[in-house]
This record gives sequence, C-alpha cells and structure tokens, in this order.
Amino acid sequence: MNYSPGVLSVLPIFYVGWSDSVLSPSEMRAIQAFIEKIPHLSDDDKQLLLLWTDQRHPPSKETFADWAKILQQYAASLDLSERKKLVEIGIEMAKKAASVADQKNWDSAQVRQSIEDFEQKMGLNNALSQQTFYNAIAPHNALEISQEVAFDTAQLQAHLDGSFADLKQRTKTLLADETFRIPTDLRQKDELRQVILEQCRQLARQGLGAYTFPIEYGGSASTGGSTAIFETLAMGNLSLLIKYGVQFGLFGGAVYQLGTQYHHEKYLNALGKLDLAGCFAMTETGHGSNVRDLETTATYDHATRTLVVHSPTETAGKEYIGNALHSQMAAVFCQLVVNGQNHGIHTVLVPLRDEQHTVLEGITIKDCGYKMGLNGVDNGRIWFNQVRVPVQNLLNRYGDIDENGQYQSPIQNPSKRFFTMLGALVGGRVSVALASNTAAKKALDIAIRYALKRRQFKTLSEDQETLLLDYATHQERLFPLLAKSYALTFALETLRQKFVGSTALDDKREVEALAAGLKSYASWHATATIQECREACGGKGYLTENELPDLKADTDIFATFEGDNYVLLQLLAKSILTDFKQEFSDGGYLAIARHLLQRASTKWAETNPFAANNTDAEHLLDPDFHTDALRHREQKLLFTLSDRMRSFMAKKVNPNEIFVRTQTHLVALAMANVERFINEEFLKYLQTLPESPEKAALQTMQQCFALDALHRDRAWFLENDYFGGEKSKAIRKVLEKLYRQIRPDALGYVEAFGIPAVLRNAEIVA
Amino acid sequence: MNYSPGVLSVLPIFYVGWSDSVLSPSEMRAIQAFIEKIPHLSDDDKQLLLLWTDQRHPPSKETFADWAKILQQYAASLDLSERKKLVEIGIEMAKKAASVADQKNWDSAQVRQSIEDFEQKMGLNNALSQQTFYNAIAPHNALEISQEVAFDTAQLQAHLDGSFADLKQRTKTLLADETFRIPTDLRQKDELRQVILEQCRQLARQGLGAYTFPIEYGGSASTGGSTAIFETLAMGNLSLLIKYGVQFGLFGGAVYQLGTQYHHEKYLNALGKLDLAGCFAMTETGHGSNVRDLETTATYDHATRTLVVHSPTETAGKEYIGNALHSQMAAVFCQLVVNGQNHGIHTVLVPLRDEQHTVLEGITIKDCGYKMGLNGVDNGRIWFNQVRVPVQNLLNRYGDIDENGQYQSPIQNPSKRFFTMLGALVGGRVSVALASNTAAKKALDIAIRYALKRRQFKTLSEDQETLLLDYATHQERLFPLLAKSYALTFALETLRQKFVGSTALDDKREVEALAAGLKSYASWHATATIQECREACGGKGYLTENELPDLKADTDIFATFEGDNYVLLQLLAKSILTDFKQEFSDGGYLAIARHLLQRASTKWAETNPFAANNTDAEHLLDPDFHTDALRHREQKLLFTLSDRMRSFMAKKVNPNEIFVRTQTHLVALAMANVERFINEEFLKYLQTLPESPEKAALQTMQQCFALDALHRDRAWFLENDYFGGEKSKAIRKVLEKLYRQIRPDALGYVEAFGIPAVLRNAEIVA
Repeated sequence: MNYSPGVLSVLPIFYVGWSDSVLSPSEMRAIQAFIEKIPHLSDDDKQLLLLWTDQRHPPSKETFADWAKILQQYAASLDLSERKKLVEIGIEMAKKAASVADQKNWDSAQVRQSIEDFEQKMGLNNALSQQTFYNAIAPHNALEISQEVAFDTAQLQAHLDGSFADLKQRTKTLLADETFRIPTDLRQKDELRQVILEQCRQLARQGLGAYTFPIEYGGSASTGGSTAIFETLAMGNLSLLIKYGVQFGLFGGAVYQLGTQYHHEKYLNALGKLDLAGCFAMTETGHGSNVRDLETTATYDHATRTLVVHSPTETAGKEYIGNALHSQMAAVFCQLVVNGQNHGIHTVLVPLRDEQHTVLEGITIKDCGYKMGLNGVDNGRIWFNQVRVPVQNLLNRYGDIDENGQYQSPIQNPSKRFFTMLGALVGGRVSVALASNTAAKKALDIAIRYALKRRQFKTLSEDQETLLLDYATHQERLFPLLAKSYALTFALETLRQKFVGSTALDDKREVEALAAGLKSYASWHATATIQECREACGGKGYLTENELPDLKADTDIFATFEGDNYVLLQLLAKSILTDFKQEFSDGGYLAIARHLLQRASTKWAETNPFAANNTDAEHLLDPDFHTDALRHREQKLLFTLSDRMRSFMAKKVNPNEIFVRTQTHLVALAMANVERFINEEFLKYLQTLPESPEKAALQTMQQCFALDALHRDRAWFLENDYFGGEKSKAIRKVLEKLYRQIRPDALGYVEAFGIPAVLRNAEIVA
Repeated sequence: MNYSPGVLSVLPIFYVGWSDSVLSPSEMRAIQAFIEKIPHLSDDDKQLLLLWTDQRHPPSKETFADWAKILQQYAASLDLSERKKLVEIGIEMAKKAASVADQKNWDSAQVRQSIEDFEQKMGLNNALSQQTFYNAIAPHNALEISQEVAFDTAQLQAHLDGSFADLKQRTKTLLADETFRIPTDLRQKDELRQVILEQCRQLARQGLGAYTFPIEYGGSASTGGSTAIFETLAMGNLSLLIKYGVQFGLFGGAVYQLGTQYHHEKYLNALGKLDLAGCFAMTETGHGSNVRDLETTATYDHATRTLVVHSPTETAGKEYIGNALHSQMAAVFCQLVVNGQNHGIHTVLVPLRDEQHTVLEGITIKDCGYKMGLNGVDNGRIWFNQVRVPVQNLLNRYGDIDENGQYQSPIQNPSKRFFTMLGALVGGRVSVALASNTAAKKALDIAIRYALKRRQFKTLSEDQETLLLDYATHQERLFPLLAKSYALTFALETLRQKFVGSTALDDKREVEALAAGLKSYASWHATATIQECREACGGKGYLTENELPDLKADTDIFATFEGDNYVLLQLLAKSILTDFKQEFSDGGYLAIARHLLQRASTKWAETNPFAANNTDAEHLLDPDFHTDALRHREQKLLFTLSDRMRSFMAKKVNPNEIFVRTQTHLVALAMANVERFINEEFLKYLQTLPESPEKAALQTMQQCFALDALHRDRAWFLENDYFGGEKSKAIRKVLEKLYRQIRPDALGYVEAFGIPAVLRNAEIVA
C-alpha cells in the first residue's frame, strides 16, 4: 500500500488516535470538519482521511495492519533513544515519500502548524501518545515517559503559596532546623510530650505563637498570618501542630476573643511565650457536639465576688483536653448561674496548678492515655469540685456580672449570645481545614514520588519492570486526589481572606458556614488521601519510617475535633436553607421551619439540562459545563429538600423530627454546596491569570477536579436526568485522558507543593 | 369531622403511612387493590379510603390536620408508657365510635387479621412506625424504640458460627483467659513482642498451632479447623493473630506443603510447639507482588552437596519478614540454580541463629522498626551472604536435585510449577479473608453498642437527648456495613469448605480465584468499616482504650499482605476471562489474549432488563431481582471487557499493554464477580432454612446487602440502562425503610456475632 506524502504526514497521529480508543461520533464529526480545512492536503488526501474517520466504516483490521507495517518500516531507520514527536515523524515520512520538487514544502512552518493543530484536536499532543506510538512500532523496547515537566515548578508553587509565601517559607526554614527533628522510634508518650512541649516553646520564642495578638502583647497582629503558620506547621510533626494550636489558637483565642483588656494585659504576653500554659476546656464526656448542654456550672457568689466552678457528675468531666497535663490554667466553658438564673455557656479562667506544677485543690486531672495518633499531645480529663475563682476570671466580652451582682450582656438574646461566642472561635476550623490539605499534600508527595521510583512486573517492556505510576489503576487512585488538593488550595485561600476580612455580622455568618463546610470536606479529603497513599505504597506505606502511618493516625481526628463533620455539614445546610444569612446562629429547627413556610413554595423549573447528551471532549472540559452542573445539583437538592420539609410540616410532623428524617438530604446539600464553591473559586483564580504553562497546568487540575466530582456523583446526575448514560461514560473517558496528560508532569505537580526535602520524612523517597 | 368506625380502624396506619413519605404510584395501586378486599369495611368506607390513596389528589393539609386532631383526642385517654400497636389503637378507636350492637364485631380475629395484613402491606408493621405515631400524637414525650429483639440471638449466632462452632467456642474460652490480656498502654515494641511470643507459645501448648498437621506430628489434621481458629483469634490481639499465622500458617505451611516426609519428620513436631521458631522469607525489598522475579539465589554445589543462598543486591534483602527477630530458621524463597541453569523459585530452609540465639555467619537481620500497627510482631529484613546449607534443606515436593546433581520435578512446565507451589499456600489468603470479617464485626459491635448508649441533642424529645442510632445518618453509615459482614460470613464459609475439599487441579484453581477475590473484598470491608466505626464513635473512637485505633492500625495491612488487593483482583479477572479454569496458573497475558481471540466474538444480547421501571417495594426486596441485577452486571462487564480486548488485539496492540489499558475494567469485573458470589451464597444458605424469626432476620440482612450493593454502584446500572432514575431512587427509599426495620434489632444483630464481653476491649461499651 502506498500513501501520498500528505496522508503520511498525519499517519502517526491517525495510528495512535485509532489504537488509543474508539472515538465518539461527535469527536469524529469535529475531526472531519478539521480535516477539510488542513491546507497542505490534496482533495484526494482529504477524501481518504475522511473515509477513515467515517464512523460507519472505521479503518478495517487490514488497513490498520498496513499502517503498522508502514510505520514499522520507517521505524527501522529511527534512532529509538531519541524521542521524536508524532508531528516530526509524520513530516519526515512525508519528505521521504515526496518528490524532489515537493521536498521543501514540508519544511514550511505553516504545514507543521496545521499538523500540530490536528494533533491537538485529536487530543494526542502529549507524552503518553508518543509512548503509545513507540511501544507499537517497537514493542520490546518500550520507552518510558520522559520526566520533563511542562511548567516551572517554582512558579506553580507561587500560585499555591499565595500572599503569605514569605511567612510560609520562614516557617519551613524554622521547621527544617535540627531542633525540630524527632526520632521515628520515639513512641513513648510521656517522653514524646516533653519533646513536643520544648519544641512548642521554640516556636513561641520565634514569635509564631503570639502572631495573631496585637503588637503590644508581643504579637504581629496578623490573623491571616497565623493561619498560614498553622497551615505550614502541618508539614512537620503533627503533635507539635496540635500542641501549638491548643496553646495559642484555642486557649489564646479564648482569652483574646472572649476576654477583655484586663485579661489581655494580664495574660496575653505570657501566654504567647508559653510562659503561661493553658488549655481549652470545652468538651465534656457527656457533651461534645452539643456544647449548649454542657453540665459544668460556674455559680456566682456575690458575698465573696467569686465564681464557684463545679462538675456535678462524672460525665461533666472535661474530656480530650489538650495540654491538660502541662497547663497552669484552663479556659473552662460552663453554664453561668447568677442569682439562681442560668445565663447559658460562658468561659471562666480556672488555675489548675501552682508554680511547682502541683494540681490545686478541688481539681482532678487524668491522662486520656494513648490515642490513635497525636501521642505527643497531652490530652486529659478534668473535673472541678467547687473551685472558687475571682469574678474577674470570667471572660466577659459577651457577658459580665456587674458590681451589684447583676448579669449584663451586650447581646440580649441568649441563643444569639451563645452563637456569637462560638463564632468568635471560628479560626480553629479555618486552621484545621488548611492543615488537612497540607497533610493530604504530604501523603501525595510521598506516594507519587515512590510511584515514580518503584517498579513491579515487566509489563510494558522485556528489559525493565514498569513504574507503578504507569499503571492505569495507580493513576486513577492518585490523580483525582491530587486535583482535589490543588482545588482546595484556592478555596481555602478565599476562606482565609474572608475570615480575616469579616467584620459585619453577616460576613461572619458566611465565614462560619464556609468554614464548617470546608473543614469537613478537607478533613475527609485528608483521611481518604492518606489512606489511599498508604495502600498505594504497599508494605512500605505501613512502616513508620515512611511517615504515612503517623500522617494517617495523627490526622484521623480532624474529622471529629473542632466539630464533628456530620454536625458541621448540618449547620451549613441550615444556613443554606435560610439564605446563608440569618438564623444560622440560632440552631433552632423551628425557626428554620417557619422561614421555609414563609418562602413561597415554587415548582422546580426543570430547565433543559445543559446539553444532556453532548459527549464532546471540548464540551466536557469546558468550565461552563462544570459550573452549570455543580450549580444545578446544589439548587435542585435545595429545592427538593425545602419541598420535602414543607410537605412534612403540612402534615404537622414535629420540626425536630423533620430534621432527623431529612438528615441525609441535608448532608448531601451541604457537600454539594462546598464542592460547587471549591470549583468556582478555582475558576475565579484562573480568570485572573494570563496564559502560561503554569496556568495550563492549573487548568488541567481544575478540569480533573470538576470532572472527578461529576464522575463520583454521576449516580445523582443520572437519576436526575442531568446527563445520560453515554455522557456519563464519556466523562470517564475524558478523565482517563486527563490522567495520561497529568502523568508526565506528576513530579512537577507535587514539587510545587513546596515541601522541603528535610520534612519529607520517608525513607522510600529519601 | 366524624369518621365511621371502619375508617377509624385504619386511621393510625393511614396517618403514619402518609406522614412517613410520599408513596410511589405503584405502591398506591397495590394499596388500593388491597383496600378493595378488606372484608369489614363498608362500601362507603372503602370509597373514602380509596379517595385518600388517589395519587392525583392526596389527602389535603386540612384532611391531614383533621386526622391529627382525632388521633390526639384519642391519645388524651391513652397511657403513653404502654406502647400499643397501631392495629390495637385503630380497633380501640373503632370500638369507641361503634354502636353497642356493633361493638363485638371489632373483637373478631378476622377483623384484626385484615388490619394487620393492611399494616404489613403498607410496610408499617415495625417499631419505627409505632414511634412515629407516638411522636406525632405526643411530640413532647417522644418514646424511644423498644430494645426487644425480634429473634433469638443464640440461634442467630449458631447460623453464623457454622460447622466449627465448638472449636470457635474453645478458642474464645482460651482467649478469655487472663494469660491473654495485654495492658492498653504497652506500646513499646520490644516489650510487646516478648508478651506476644509468650502468648503464642501458650496457643501452641493448647495444640492450636499444629492443628492442620497430621496427628502423628502433634496436629489434629484439620485444615478447616485451623482456619476457624484463625478466624476466632482475630477477636483478640491482632499481633498475636499474625504471629500465630506467620509461625504456623506461613512457616509451618511452607514446610508442610512444600516439603516432604524428611522435613515433616524433622521439623513439624517442634514447629507446632514453637520449639522451632521460623519465618517465611518470600518478599524482598525490590519484589513483593512480583514473586517470580525475586533476586535471592540458591546455587547448587555438587562437590559438597550444598546450596549457597545469596542476596546479590541490597534490594534482594528479604523484607517485612514476620518473626525475623525470634526465628531460628527461615523458609527462603529464591531462584534455584543448578548447573548454571535457573529453575525458578524454590524454597530452602536456612538456619538463622544458633541455640544461644546468636545470628549465624553470613546472615544480616535488621528490625523493620515501628509500623502503623501490629507492633507486637517482629518484622525484619534479612540478607544472605553466601550461606551454605545441605541440599536436604530444599523443600523438594515440587522440585528436587538428585544424587547425580540433576534437577528433577514432577511438573515440567516451569510456569505451572511456580503457580502450583504458590497455590499450595492459598490457605493464608483464606485465613486473612476470615480474620478481616471478624475484625469488621468487632468494630461494628463496639460502634453499634455505643450508639445505643450515647445521646446527643434533644432532637426528638424535650426530656432526653436522642440516641445516636436514632439519627438517620448514623443508621445509613453503620447498617450497610453490618449487612456486609453478615453476607460475607456465608460466602467465606463456602470458601472454607471449597478450600478444605479441593483436591483436583480445577478445584484448586477455583479456590485460588475465590480466595483472591474474597480476601480483597473482605480486607477492604474491614478497613472501611473500622474507619467508619472509629468516626461514628467521635473522640472516644480515637482513644486507644476503646480498641478501634488498634483494630484500624493492625488490620490496615490486610489489604496489602498475602497479595496486594489490586494485583489479586487482576488475577481473579484473568481467571474469569479464561472461564475460571485454565491459564489462571500461567499469568501470561499473551495466552489469555489468544484464548479470547479463539472464543467467538458475539454481540451482547441486550435482553430487556428485569423490570427496569418497577419500583414496588415487593419487587425491590425480591432476591430474584438482586440475583438478576448482580449477574447482569458481571456478564456485561465480562462481555464489554472481552470486546475491548479483542478490538485492541485486532489493532496489534501489545498484549501486555492491553492489560494496562483495561486495568480498571479488570478490577471492576473482579469486584462484580465477588459481590455476585457473596449474594448468591447468602441466598443458597437461606434456601436451606425453614421459616423462623432468625431466618427473617437473615433475610433482612441479605436484602440490605444486595440493595446496598446496587445502590453503591447505581451509577453503573443507570449508565447501562439496567434501571432508570425512578427505580434508583426507589431503591434508596426501600433501603431507608430497611434501616428502620433493622434499628430495633440492632443490638441483637451484633450480639449474634458472639464476641465475648471480655474481648470487647473498649471502655465505652464496658
């Protein structure tokens, strides 16, 4: 079979295109339209190529075998160690077959451009296609994908680092210091806790502890900076991270946010230096999620101007309290009783130990013992038996007792007061969300680097075993998680900025709702990612020397602390139901039920789904499609939920019971809301960038994130006829292509996380 | 509004039915047909009730409010502490409204029966419906679901225990002994390892170590019994389980299965008593899944009749070897080289230490250090430097060196020989599958008991906070996992029986394929279940005192050892592609490719799916529907996979590359095969049982397992038009009803796991 130079010039592309997969009819049509416009092809050439793209008569086995033969003949003269591009090979083949007169036409830039455009149209302008080609023409000398990354990793890192890049770098430099190394074999909790305490002191000495506080109290007056420090500390030992968070974020945050000048002047300086160690005693054995019903009481005694702090039952004991064994003082959350009246939850500073570190009278402290992880943090249980403290120890920003012994508060509504106090502590959730993503990045960094070193089975070559990352299942396991970590980065940056910038009440409510959702999403992402990475590293992933076991164990509690994820998602759902603004603080189901009833019941306007059967890759990769799909899901979930609730209400079902019955729906709505938000923040960020290889790299991550989100929840989209079965399958196909596109750049993507080698605490990638 | 006695007799059922959810049109039709046939209703009654079931005009808000009013009036005279059934209440209301003459008609058994039948038809004959009713009529005194279990837990346990019930009980009694308690705070690996070693010796003294071996070597000649012991030991400390497995199952199994009489006589007795501690040195740093390419060599020297065992490189070191620090001997897997020719993998017994426990010359052993879990097991690395052993140390059942120094084997084909040797060790996978399910059951036992104790938020009552297990999300998180553990029990029992009974080669192949699939499925089930249970117990689940952290950490490696799950699933898929019989042993992709090409390519006969739009609960709960759906999925995946492979082959794509490209498809096929098998084995078991409350309890588990399987993978069924969106939603609805049906019996379901209280090592449920 002899083909014309024109046909030969695109033959390598045709060969790979057809061997790669079956093209969809709409892809075929797009390709046909393109072929018509290629300038250097003769009409005969075009006719033949069009025939080959006719979906009713795809190239026969014989034709395909002919192509293979031609390419293999050409390959005989090819130096296989030099990896030419498909376009290059096509042009060379054309030149060989061309007449002398015709030769120089094949050197024209325009010709090359048109073939390159065609390659791109076919989605084959990537290293994987090149590899497929070489494997086909020389199967026993299969080449591996080149490790050349298509973008500048430092520039990509700058995008991820955002505005606190310098502070993050400073924190990393500090963490890299010898002081912060901990032997992997140090498993004895008491010893480890001492090391962590000392390291935490070092962080304080560097000014990192007081970072949020005003300058006059030794701080840098930067709340955003403090979240950036926390986010970065998660690259190091996670017990240190949590110890730091407990001392400065929780205990420090309570004194700073719930206290007033008296407390700031008296405590902030010492606290920021860790000269005053304190704990945040909120959770009790009997009450965790339900803070409002804590049992501990602080009863005011006007005669002595003191508060009597007391745990009335065993289950009133404070539980899981970090820093309990090292603290001199606790910020105790308790019911404030004044003149026999309970004014709800308030916070009282209660000294726990004297200067010799002896536990004070009336106080009982027990160690929580070993935990799944975070064994460098001293969690304990604390009970109070009629412990008296001066009334000044009440953190009195939102509620105080005046000189006449009368309770006073700037917020009259007790429920509103409660949620305002809790809202002041939202920084913890913002920080945990950020740290979760850092932990996920660390796991991906290890697993992807290992998959680029570890070989098993001579699958693709007779000479060498195949890299783990060249297996399709391995790509499918790791790349969607990689894309999620990328996407989360930008959403979390937005959260940070909104958190820093929120002053008005409505803004604060929005931040609380956002933080609740992103904390849940990010912490589950961390758990799932670290687990997958551990398994993807096989037995090596099970050894402590490779850090994944500690990463997994230490972060596992992130889904629970700072609010159980299921409870947080219901908070978020409630705020969505009430238009993101009011009532979020209330927590009462009845108010929400009333609000829903007030809103006019409307019929869901089933607009024609956005091209329900369009399976073109171009369409599937289009951000407008992603945005529309994710908005549609959230809106429809919101509508059907409101509708179900209204229908229950019409039947006089108790409002609380309605919430129990629709609980799974509430959680689904909240998750849909978070995912839609993450995608949109990613797109917003991309819109600000000029074209560059780094922007292209980020776009690939966005596409992978969005399509994976649709793919994971495709059941919902199918059930709701947003797209059909063919489109759903097409999404998977496009995802697989994206994985292959990501594969050659995988190392670059994890390098851009900017995790210093010294903090990559894994022998397998050392 | 006054209703007739007839209408009042079914009003409680109507009220709950309509408040519960919106009924589907087909359910409505079924109910209407039923109403027509209720004998004690007048024509007027029927007409009114039919009106209320007309889907076009469901009861109006006003009507519903009327019902509520009537019921609340009646409730005023009701003693709320006595919980009457809906049927009871209906009859009482009817009697109150009836004329004197009519009174006694309401005491007739036939009338009661017809109302009970109607209640059942509506799916409301359960404790949850009763609760709904009481909550509605007296919202502020909401009653909790009664804890009366509907079946006999001991009888249910007997079904789960199966034929080795006595041996399991004996093992539990032993484990319950004081000897086997380990302080939760014992975290120091060297100390813990000593304790575990001593405990393992105790098991050996009780005859549990040698259980598989023939009676003349101190055993009980029961392979099945030995798997039952392993399954049950998983209720105790898992380091002990694995130590036991390494010594008796792996090291013992290698000597027994790969050795001959000489080795049996020399070693089995001492080995079974743990007087000879040994390890199973297969995996190397460089080769885990790919055993065939291990680097360690054993080179025969005829002059001295010795084998020289050698690790040529650093990566040839044996890795993760359990018992490495305590062993006197290793069964070393290595390439056997005789007269310069490599005969492939064989096993050689190599002494590691002398009687003073000093490491012998040429041998280097290093501790693997701390691991995520199983820190009571001494895993280590071992290198050999030209270590000489007598040729008799070759385990020579499948390959030997005769007196003339010539290699001899009963199996000529080296590939077949390799897979026969490996196949002889399949017991390890069977055992790990069984132990995985035990671990999952332990976690469910803890989490469900805790959810029946722990309360949070006064959601359903003003007096008392609500039990975690009464939250819909909590049920949705735990019950499908409970059902999976039930279902797996019967499939694993079948595997055990097939494993014990397999003698012919084809049987063995089938057992290998089954074991590969079930080990993967069960180990992932354990990981997912324990993680979910840990999270479902909140902060308490993070404390080591509540066992979940150790359960999670210790079992996490089950997905990796005895074969990485992804690799095993591909083995299973290959065996399915080749009709479950041939070539499984081969492992070569080319042979499978050829086999596929030989089979006639057929077109997938798209039979009308089994009632694609039937959303009746009766149909959805029908085992025939489950069987059909799960078979359909497997068959279609097999067909489309074969088809894709053939199409690649026609395009001359390298067979190995075809397997890489279709890897995710292979894994999906294997998982579909396993799930179909589990469901069918459950149904087969159920068919053998006469009707009883325990059978009904098992049927509920089967329905929950099967529908959850369809629900989890509903995207596939939707994409492939096996069912439509409405049916998919209906499945979720039926699942939710099943959860509510399971709820009152939840404690009974976990009690039937038969985990002794003393082994329930969790403070929260102590």
